[in-house]
Amino acid sequence: MRKQILEIQKRMKEENIDAYMVMTDDFHGSEYVGDYFKCREYLSGFTGSAGRMIITADEAGLWTDGRYFIQAEAELSGSGIKLYKMGEQGVPDIMQYLSSNMLEGQTLAFDGRTVSAAATSNIEKRLSGKNIKIVYDVDLVGDIWDDRPERNCTGIWQLGIKYAGKSREEKIEELRNILKNNKSDGIIITALDEIAWLLNIRANDIDYNPVALSYLILETSEDENSYLFVNKNAVSDEIENELNKCRIFVREYDEIYDYVKVLEPGKCYMTDMSKANTMVVRNITSEVKIKNFISPVMQMKAVKNKAEMDNERISHIKDGVAVTKLIYWLKKNVNNMNITEMDVVNKLDDIRRDIDSYIEPSFATISAYGTNGAIVHYEPDEDSDKLITKDGFLLLDAGGHYLEGTTDMTRTISVGNISSEMKNHYTAVLKGNLRLADAKFMYGCRGANLDYIAREPLWKMGLDFKHGTGHGVGYLLNVHESPNSFRWKINPMQINSQDAVLEEGMITSDEPGVYIEGKYGIRLENLLMCVKDEKNYYGQFMRFDVLTMVPFDRESIDVSALNQDDRYLLNAYHSKVYETISSYMEEDEREWLKNETKEI
Amino acid sequence: MRKQILEIQKRMKEENIDAYMVMTDDFHGSEYVGDYFKCREYLSGFTGSAGRMIITADEAGLWTDGRYFIQAEAELSGSGIKLYKMGEQGVPDIMQYLSSNMLEGQTLAFDGRTVSAAATSNIEKRLSGKNIKIVYDVDLVGDIWDDRPERNCTGIWQLGIKYAGKSREEKIEELRNILKNNKSDGIIITALDEIAWLLNIRANDIDYNPVALSYLILETSEDENSYLFVNKNAVSDEIENELNKCRIFVREYDEIYDYVKVLEPGKCYMTDMSKANTMVVRNITSEVKIKNFISPVMQMKAVKNKAEMDNERISHIKDGVAVTKLIYWLKKNVNNMNITEMDVVNKLDDIRRDIDSYIEPSFATISAYGTNGAIVHYEPDEDSDKLITKDGFLLLDAGGHYLEGTTDMTRTISVGNISSEMKNHYTAVLKGNLRLADAKFMYGCRGANLDYIAREPLWKMGLDFKHGTGHGVGYLLNVHESPNSFRWKINPMQINSQDAVLEEGMITSDEPGVYIEGKYGIRLENLLMCVKDEKNYYGQFMRFDVLTMVPFDRESIDVSALNQDDRYLLNAYHSKVYETISSYMEEDEREWLKNETKEI
Repeated sequence: MRKQILEIQKRMKEENIDAYMVMTDDFHGSEYVGDYFKCREYLSGFTGSAGRMIITADEAGLWTDGRYFIQAEAELSGSGIKLYKMGEQGVPDIMQYLSSNMLEGQTLAFDGRTVSAAATSNIEKRLSGKNIKIVYDVDLVGDIWDDRPERNCTGIWQLGIKYAGKSREEKIEELRNILKNNKSDGIIITALDEIAWLLNIRANDIDYNPVALSYLILETSEDENSYLFVNKNAVSDEIENELNKCRIFVREYDEIYDYVKVLEPGKCYMTDMSKANTMVVRNITSEVKIKNFISPVMQMKAVKNKAEMDNERISHIKDGVAVTKLIYWLKKNVNNMNITEMDVVNKLDDIRRDIDSYIEPSFATISAYGTNGAIVHYEPDEDSDKLITKDGFLLLDAGGHYLEGTTDMTRTISVGNISSEMKNHYTAVLKGNLRLADAKFMYGCRGANLDYIAREPLWKMGLDFKHGTGHGVGYLLNVHESPNSFRWKINPMQINSQDAVLEEGMITSDEPGVYIEGKYGIRLENLLMCVKDEKNYYGQFMRFDVLTMVPFDRESIDVSALNQDDRYLLNAYHSKVYETISSYMEEDEREWLKNETKEI
Repeated sequence: MRKQILEIQKRMKEENIDAYMVMTDDFHGSEYVGDYFKCREYLSGFTGSAGRMIITADEAGLWTDGRYFIQAEAELSGSGIKLYKMGEQGVPDIMQYLSSNMLEGQTLAFDGRTVSAAATSNIEKRLSGKNIKIVYDVDLVGDIWDDRPERNCTGIWQLGIKYAGKSREEKIEELRNILKNNKSDGIIITALDEIAWLLNIRANDIDYNPVALSYLILETSEDENSYLFVNKNAVSDEIENELNKCRIFVREYDEIYDYVKVLEPGKCYMTDMSKANTMVVRNITSEVKIKNFISPVMQMKAVKNKAEMDNERISHIKDGVAVTKLIYWLKKNVNNMNITEMDVVNKLDDIRRDIDSYIEPSFATISAYGTNGAIVHYEPDEDSDKLITKDGFLLLDAGGHYLEGTTDMTRTISVGNISSEMKNHYTAVLKGNLRLADAKFMYGCRGANLDYIAREPLWKMGLDFKHGTGHGVGYLLNVHESPNSFRWKINPMQINSQDAVLEEGMITSDEPGVYIEGKYGIRLENLLMCVKDEKNYYGQFMRFDVLTMVPFDRESIDVSALNQDDRYLLNAYHSKVYETISSYMEEDEREWLKNETKEI
């Protein structure tokens, strides 16, 4: 058995723990986690982005999903850790494993900072028949991890009103009104993007997410002290002074766990149990009332204000110019240079680096050639890097953070010959993308009402893609944010937190695809900004503005498969792209773009 | 004040009742109610199909919705009853009225047989602050109503296995398995169509719903006695014997209220609180456990079996021939005969009467000419009956019950000149109808995922229709049944009972429309049967079979507004209609049909 596991098992024995669970999450449920939080990786050697472990006195198991079966098998080889392939027939999930392996009265432990309060309640419920004791205030991996990396502590900076559109004072006042209406004395916010948005601060503590490791306890009364828990070294005097003006005081990041123990009895705090971690919630005494509520900040943040909406148009022009230049470069040079997937990533970085207001990529660029395109979450690295030859598709999924907002787009680019089947599939994906962007709908619709539009051309051909059609996108924040989305499956329990009514100012991606294993992948992604359309006797109509400004791949379109409405939509989009970005292009680029976008 | 109200107020005083509520419902929440149940009409004089009353010591109010404001004002004139126009600004709803008018400790009473148990719980919750006493076992209207009509008691007959597809024994066994899996000792069924479906019986106690007034308490154990509560006179010896073979014994209709009082303590019964009336549920002692559950019979009934599916195709051919003949007759004669809306209704009755296996209309035929077409729930009678002249649209919404199932279709028929706006609107409705019928989707989709398809052509023009796109349809049962539907609004609390996952064998109407007040109405309705399409790597695909076999109105279509896909769908449908029904037509009808359905 791997040394780290043996050490954990020794510690478990000392602490009378029968089963110890290790998650992949940080203390905030972030999509990406810093090195400090990579307990599961340290313990198992498995480096994938999803996976959980259970260690018992004589066993260690790791649960991960289909994306990682091959990688996990390789990385766990020789470790003595058993791989549980989630979703495969006959493979128990973690709860089934615990239910059948734990004995009456035994103890299950985990670091309660890495598990949401709602998840812990669910575990308790599932194990309730067995009188299992849950211990949530231990960090056994931390105990044995000698050279554990430091937590990230990048400098916090403020986002100016020109970009944020609203001051933190205004945002806080709006939030306080919501708290008052809900008869709450305060709110405990643990989601990093919510804190960053509310306070108009940004940092770099999480890869691709420009946020700071922090917690915020905001009192409803402006006469009481509120606290931001954060690494004090990350906060300049200037920012601290500004926060103090709002009666928000800075305390050390870890102090929240003691602070919540002394919240005033009788008070009522709102928090989102599906986000707040177990230790934050359970450290609160029973004399303080906790109101479980979908975070109002999540909703406020998702509805971009006028300045944010205007800025997003600017960032998408900047990024559209960059990506379009890249596509031209690729098309021009692929036949006379050795260009690899990574070269494309680096070239895009080079082009973007010259753009004022560009900050960083909003996620790791996917540059996937040929068969790699069929791997939905493929990300090239030095080992996998593939030379782009003169046939087939390159799938390029890239986004950037700008002061004017966050972009995310995907284009599938033919780099030479493609088959008629490829054209056929490309065109079906294109139709879905264009038609969804053209939706006009009554206010009150959710993504689940519209998802079919994007899938229809594929479903009619007996094809599908096994991911959502779209996710919400933050403003210079997480590229994946809730509560808006396009997904056809309706989860009634989470409809308002994951498939909210589409409001003016929400940004959602529109990204249907087709993935033919071992052959190629196609995905076409634009960001759509929801805006108001006409209001009449029947009510308020809504529609989308397409933010993304990058041409589709003319050579990959089978024009005969487009009906007249589709052709109209394609031509209108292409003419808009040309109008909007051509003046930022060099002469040869513009010539090429003119041809790419001319009427079909 | 109207005499009946004064009598009720006198009785209220005697019984110490401060507010008395009168509903429109029968004891089963039926869509149509027999004369015996028309307490609200007796009390108020208002004859509409929706409305509730509250009587207090010095007031009487009637609440109804926008469909009935004009009618209610006229019918209530001089009665002293105040009309509360539901949905108008500043008008309190019934609960708001009670909350603000009832005093601490007062008593609210109603006939608990006419209010669902769930609704009563809701009333209690809303009034909980005021310590209001709820009395549900009085029927004050019944007390004062001297010449109250008898309850309907039509003969019960059995639906043969050829039509039902499954014996009652098979159905009961399936239901018992569900009850076992849910650890219930029995089920209390109060919905009339559920009882009729489960026992393969039909009757005529409710207008248009071929069911018998009854309740059923089925024990999970086949060794215990189950009971059907029904007017014994309606049950022949033969049927009673057959029911007894399943250990189902017949008791008088009203006996259920005493029977539930003596259910065996410790037992657990499943019932659907949103359907079971308050008196049935509250008469059960607290030693018996009641499990509130969406009725499994509703789901079983909605998923038509193979025989039902095959039969439905037959009933729709029969009804399609009848309606197509009627349309031909109308088109041929409208210019040289005086034909009124009622004449059309009567002519359809005449044609159908000759069809073997035809039983009765499945709802009151809507034959609405010109401006009447814009009134969504218009039903012609002697007073409103309008002569059909040679311009504009006749909207015909008609359905029939056959041994082979229930039909429901709407056609909008031009009887002469129509404007280009009318053509334009007709064509948009047609596109919505055709495209929804052509949907192909992954198993798991609900109506809310598909509703947009039918509305899109209208929404894009800034139009809408203020009703669902589609409702479930029973098999020789209620023409409106749950749980399947096409509606875009998602109610997460009732998604499985009102917008269930579409299963093979479910029948749902597809009926978009446009209603231009004071001008005309357009609605086009086909019934769609959900069937399986291909199953492949991506999963199980589903699609619809169009059951309805009636041509669309060729003259009303603006061909230039159809894209090539729409034209393909229209031609395919028309060619199917011709193939399927032309051999049942007379020579001149067939000639006409050939022209109506020829390729566009």
